[in-house]
Amino acid sequence: MTTTTLNVKGMTCNHCVQAVEGALTELSGVERALVDLKANSVAVEYDESVVTVEQMTEAIEDQGYDVEA
Amino acid sequence: MTTTTLNVKGMTCNHCVQAVEGALTELSGVERALVDLKANSVAVEYDESVVTVEQMTEAIEDQGYDVEA
Repeated sequence: MTTTTLNVKGMTCNHCVQAVEGALTELSGVERALVDLKANSVAVEYDESVVTVEQMTEAIEDQGYDVEA
Repeated sequence: MTTTTLNVKGMTCNHCVQAVEGALTELSGVERALVDLKANSVAVEYDESVVTVEQMTEAIEDQGYDVEA
């Protein structure tokens, strides 16, 4: 299990928080996700043998948000 | 409920992660805490009518870690 923090653009309210956290935790291998709305970031705990940062990025972008490198 | 991300110095391993997350989630008003070990940060979801950033900082410092402003 490892953790990373992704920078996410476009989150404005609690619906955005739920969308991003939900998209991440639905992915196999993602254990926990916690959005910081003011910091425009999401901290993620995941199993790197199961899921990649690229897959997490895609899941967030599918919800309509941009992930910055 | 609101979220913040605190910068924590001195966390080196999963025992540190457990100590910091545990100290935070034991506080009344703290809903969730997720440490990013590589980023030296902890994202916290909390009820600002119940617990303050100062109290969270103290709880982390009591575990032997420094919180940077």
